[in-house]
Amino acid sequence: MDQMVDRYPSRILPTPTIVDRLDPIVWGESKQDGAPLAPADIESFKRNGYLAFARFFTPEEVGRLTAALATAWHAAGRSDGDMIVREPDSDIVRSVFAIHESDAVFRDLLHDPRLAGIAAQLLGSPVYIHQSRINYKTGFRGKEFYWHSDFETWHTEDGMPRMRAISISIALSDNHAVNGPLMLIPGSHKHYVTCVGATPEDHFRESLRRQAIGTPDDGSLRWLVEQGGIDAPTGPAGSIVLFDCNTMHGSNGNITPYPRSNIFAVYNSVENALVQPFGGTPPRPDFIASRKVTPIA
Amino acid sequence: MDQMVDRYPSRILPTPTIVDRLDPIVWGESKQDGAPLAPADIESFKRNGYLAFARFFTPEEVGRLTAALATAWHAAGRSDGDMIVREPDSDIVRSVFAIHESDAVFRDLLHDPRLAGIAAQLLGSPVYIHQSRINYKTGFRGKEFYWHSDFETWHTEDGMPRMRAISISIALSDNHAVNGPLMLIPGSHKHYVTCVGATPEDHFRESLRRQAIGTPDDGSLRWLVEQGGIDAPTGPAGSIVLFDCNTMHGSNGNITPYPRSNIFAVYNSVENALVQPFGGTPPRPDFIASRKVTPIA
Repeated sequence: MDQMVDRYPSRILPTPTIVDRLDPIVWGESKQDGAPLAPADIESFKRNGYLAFARFFTPEEVGRLTAALATAWHAAGRSDGDMIVREPDSDIVRSVFAIHESDAVFRDLLHDPRLAGIAAQLLGSPVYIHQSRINYKTGFRGKEFYWHSDFETWHTEDGMPRMRAISISIALSDNHAVNGPLMLIPGSHKHYVTCVGATPEDHFRESLRRQAIGTPDDGSLRWLVEQGGIDAPTGPAGSIVLFDCNTMHGSNGNITPYPRSNIFAVYNSVENALVQPFGGTPPRPDFIASRKVTPIA
Repeated sequence: MDQMVDRYPSRILPTPTIVDRLDPIVWGESKQDGAPLAPADIESFKRNGYLAFARFFTPEEVGRLTAALATAWHAAGRSDGDMIVREPDSDIVRSVFAIHESDAVFRDLLHDPRLAGIAAQLLGSPVYIHQSRINYKTGFRGKEFYWHSDFETWHTEDGMPRMRAISISIALSDNHAVNGPLMLIPGSHKHYVTCVGATPEDHFRESLRRQAIGTPDDGSLRWLVEQGGIDAPTGPAGSIVLFDCNTMHGSNGNITPYPRSNIFAVYNSVENALVQPFGGTPPRPDFIASRKVTPIA
């Protein structure tokens, strides 16, 4: 596909800027028959940039997913595949990518109309899986994930043209206030924070372990938090949080004995397929940012 | 003073152990006239090992203390004194010690009968200030404080004979769930977790920045949390938490823009004055562990 106009340039200017979002937040305004989200959910999503649903999956479903996670985890520990990311200071597995391609349980989960249907409803089109992974934040020595907008990276390093993707995080352990839960800045999805610093070659190998380039500056974060505060949804295993691709989020470290694991999936609109990365670097591998558009039926 | 029997040996055995506390939790059973704590407070302290009081100080008092903290902070930034501890990865000031000796506002605060009176009531004797400091956990890049029992260190490295000291933390910024608040393990004060590893010479210079020796093992922590869970009291500036010297506590890092600052004071019973360190190393400096017993009137 040819290069197109860069609506969201980043990592170019010597100082950070905050610009308005140029895209709709919800692309499909009308509630179709059978669309999962109610009008109040849609309004909340427009305002805050995310939705949290406690106990979205039943304990039985959680049990089945947890077993699949454990199996994938142990296999990853013995593998040296590219799709496995380890902690910055140890060999402990932190993430395994492209799980919908390697495991039928996860594939079925991410094709479930309860999840893919929400994404299609918000994005106003059929969707495909842009990325999937399992994340595991160990107890005692779990490291923080610094604040970031996924879109900033996906646009710059992967060539995602517009803000038209939804991430869903499915908790497979209880999220307490104390074990480093996902934090989101309500309303941050309405603003685009450009970052400073050019992207190094093969940046992703390091950035998945410890992010440095593509992180927002202190002043912009402070401004966003003054606007919207910080929310950290908690809930038992089986709860989900879904958020806009431009919602600023992160998580603190975790010294508690409670580990934290989740399944993370990104649904992109089929009308928002990747082009050449806007930052000028070669595209990242397919398991991080799929260049195959396979609509979910 | 001569060496005495070591009731709580630690850093000797090759594996960690959990033994029972050998000392009372509350040393003064009878409520004296004017003693600050009510019987229900005393029972809660016995059971949990800590008490939290939101809005203990008025906004006016908080304003005065905050101004004194800012002054002390800026002075510390320009000083290379021993009493100043910096972040492990930067020169940002993390703590300033012995503030009751250097600043009249803090001296008056820590002699206030509302604080010293609580300590005297729980410890059943007059008290003196074993240690005082201001702590500052920066926003965005605040590092964690790993789990520890203060008593384990004070006994081994400072020669505190028995569990008969009370710590009080006075919040001078709002403690949210998300900005790395103090976490405590309820009931942990009833157990003594011995640690593994000999104490290096001059250990304190490193340990105040990043603790390694004198930290409990994963198995013991998991056991304590299974017994009591984890509590993280929140509240506005002016709230206080007071806890037994053996209560296991720590705090997660802080990537939020909200900094966290507090005043921290330890009251020890005049009947529990320091002797030679039980770990056999030379005593740490007086600003960390006072060897002068000056009872508070």
